[in-house]
Amino acid sequence: MVAEILSIGDELLTGQKVNTNARFICSELAGAGIGVQRIIVCADSVGGIVEQFRDSLRRAELVIVTGGLGPTHDDKTKQSVQQFLERKLVLDREVYARTVERYRKSGREPSAYLRHNAMVIDGAVVIPNEKGLAPGMIISCTEHFDGHYLVLMPGVPLEMESMMRSTVVPFFSRKSGSVIVHSHIKTTGIGETALADIIGEIKETLPDGTSLAYLPHMAGVNLRVSSTGKDRGVVESDNRGVVDAIAGVAGEFVYATTDISLEELIGRMLLSRDLKIATAESCTGGLIAGRLTDVAGSSRYFEQGFVVYSNVSKEKVLGVKAETLDAHGAVSEEVAAEMAEGCLLRSGANIAVSSTGIAGPGGGTAEKPVGMVCLGLAIRKGGVGVEICTTTFYTQGDRLRNKARFSEAALRMVWKELRSSPAQG
Amino acid sequence: MVAEILSIGDELLTGQKVNTNARFICSELAGAGIGVQRIIVCADSVGGIVEQFRDSLRRAELVIVTGGLGPTHDDKTKQSVQQFLERKLVLDREVYARTVERYRKSGREPSAYLRHNAMVIDGAVVIPNEKGLAPGMIISCTEHFDGHYLVLMPGVPLEMESMMRSTVVPFFSRKSGSVIVHSHIKTTGIGETALADIIGEIKETLPDGTSLAYLPHMAGVNLRVSSTGKDRGVVESDNRGVVDAIAGVAGEFVYATTDISLEELIGRMLLSRDLKIATAESCTGGLIAGRLTDVAGSSRYFEQGFVVYSNVSKEKVLGVKAETLDAHGAVSEEVAAEMAEGCLLRSGANIAVSSTGIAGPGGGTAEKPVGMVCLGLAIRKGGVGVEICTTTFYTQGDRLRNKARFSEAALRMVWKELRSSPAQG
Repeated sequence: MVAEILSIGDELLTGQKVNTNARFICSELAGAGIGVQRIIVCADSVGGIVEQFRDSLRRAELVIVTGGLGPTHDDKTKQSVQQFLERKLVLDREVYARTVERYRKSGREPSAYLRHNAMVIDGAVVIPNEKGLAPGMIISCTEHFDGHYLVLMPGVPLEMESMMRSTVVPFFSRKSGSVIVHSHIKTTGIGETALADIIGEIKETLPDGTSLAYLPHMAGVNLRVSSTGKDRGVVESDNRGVVDAIAGVAGEFVYATTDISLEELIGRMLLSRDLKIATAESCTGGLIAGRLTDVAGSSRYFEQGFVVYSNVSKEKVLGVKAETLDAHGAVSEEVAAEMAEGCLLRSGANIAVSSTGIAGPGGGTAEKPVGMVCLGLAIRKGGVGVEICTTTFYTQGDRLRNKARFSEAALRMVWKELRSSPAQG
Repeated sequence: MVAEILSIGDELLTGQKVNTNARFICSELAGAGIGVQRIIVCADSVGGIVEQFRDSLRRAELVIVTGGLGPTHDDKTKQSVQQFLERKLVLDREVYARTVERYRKSGREPSAYLRHNAMVIDGAVVIPNEKGLAPGMIISCTEHFDGHYLVLMPGVPLEMESMMRSTVVPFFSRKSGSVIVHSHIKTTGIGETALADIIGEIKETLPDGTSLAYLPHMAGVNLRVSSTGKDRGVVESDNRGVVDAIAGVAGEFVYATTDISLEELIGRMLLSRDLKIATAESCTGGLIAGRLTDVAGSSRYFEQGFVVYSNVSKEKVLGVKAETLDAHGAVSEEVAAEMAEGCLLRSGANIAVSSTGIAGPGGGTAEKPVGMVCLGLAIRKGGVGVEICTTTFYTQGDRLRNKARFSEAALRMVWKELRSSPAQG
């Protein structure tokens, strides 16, 4: 079964709103083994909507329409379906009674609009709206496209999401009978081009029904492997085979084969090793701490962070030596090492990571260009004191991209360290 | 001139990515007086793309295509245009030389891909890519649709946005012969619905040729007023009239009428007052420092930041009293006040801002719910010592949204303080 999504609303065409509904619907349908071949956004105009119904139903057995069902004047969806299918509107007594009751309960006088709201396309399967007023509908288009369906839902995300999960996905899953399996391959430290080079051959020889998507982000790229078919065993084994093949050739860059962020993974590793982390940042300006604390529950392992921009604060707050700053400059592995060590000792954490670099656009030299960062890691090792390691990383981008890549490199350094130390218990 | 947007990429159809590019393009085109009548997302398949070119060019004079121009194997856009227009690919020597040079500078060996990357559709106006590799193209479709244009850009937002602003919008604005004036109204502390209520009447009575776009972001909403017409004097005066009217009714929420971020504005205010700032963050986890240091040159006024998650670190690092933590809890204005004061005294800055709250999803109580934050501000006042003020702010969202809104509220507090103190020199 192939689907198209039709999102109706002028606000999506003027740059006012981003179409998050389509993303949600795609993701729910993918999970049900239904592929989406097109998403179309069109304006609140009956002529355009009717033309689009015809176009989309010609190509797809399932056309999911959101928007244009509410009380405002620009709601044109029911009108367009009426015109397109030449069907009547009929009062759904259950919807009417429930909305009247809801108004009464909340102390509002039932308005004339409730009757209009409860009018549905004749012959539709009505989808109750648990979160709002306008009912959804599943309409079999026997007149023009036998075996093809129009699904109407409101554009309000909460209402639409609830209808998708309670009614639409179960209804069409039963019809399709396909199995779909997605796997995620999360990488760090490699860009899209380099990764494409490494896995080129695997990509060229994917099993039938399996596809590979690159999902680039500010600091790298992730992969998703999707497999569909009728037999769950075959689908799962095809999918697993591709994931294993990629992990085999790109393993040093793969930090997870589930959909988890690097900072979430680090959080889990810290918890399972009963360790606490602290950060000492110059050029990343709090971004490493920010990413670590984006994870719910991070207060259990995030001890403390320092943002030390000036040399004075590096000395005063972290105990970096003036001689080290003089001899090597603030952007140096020597200073990164002292920052990490100072952070570790002052915070009481078990592991501390530091950054000092040049995010740009200004401040670069031939020797220390914009995009260069020195990173330090200090780790408390049982009875044997503190171990310190440092590295220098180069990238090229604007200020925000450099900060993102610097923070990714710092987290990568932490991840590699944790990976080499065993979990407890 | 009427436009359609064609976004190419399987990742948009599988629910992996939301189509933010389309929103950006709509908003830029609206500002140039060009309406978008449809957005279509379609898969990485040459057949489907070619069919969609035909369909869209039949309806629209301008078809803007994003995605499918990168190095990976699922990039089908150039191939589709070749097939559709029956044109050759030719090497753009300038693009080739620039990308080879860029590789050399960063110490990478130029790969065979760079040649492929520099192949453009014969007859296209090439759009240089300032932020990445793949060049964009403006193609006049004289063969099939005289006077209609295909514009190709990469799907990477930074690259596409830069091309839109540097080349695409100016190119098509010149064609339309119109004068375009944009003004930005940057607000803080008010949401989209509330702002729409306040300015409803202004929005209903805009002069002809002037449009108003809401540009919501994580922590609030900005407005853009765009005016187009033939006469520059009229266009400018229409535009200024609307900006003044909005500033008149929503002034307390407006921090700028130029396109500047709140953190940039704060940076300029700090510089002009010769002040340095420091941060003491709990629940925002470094985000306030991160935003302040996102601004180029922020090392001139950003002194230092602390991220203190645990009670112990609040005491040890910032000198918050154990009694205060016991009596009022970590999330309290009392603790926020001591955090700000401790941060000011320890950092040597002139102004310090603190945050302590509950970002969620866990940790809320009836009295101190998720989405509550206490903020503190400590300011060194000449000979009269330190002045401290605090406030409590409530919002409702997921963890990342709460962190974003908390940091916005903290920056807002700094902005209001600076606004009330005169600039020097």
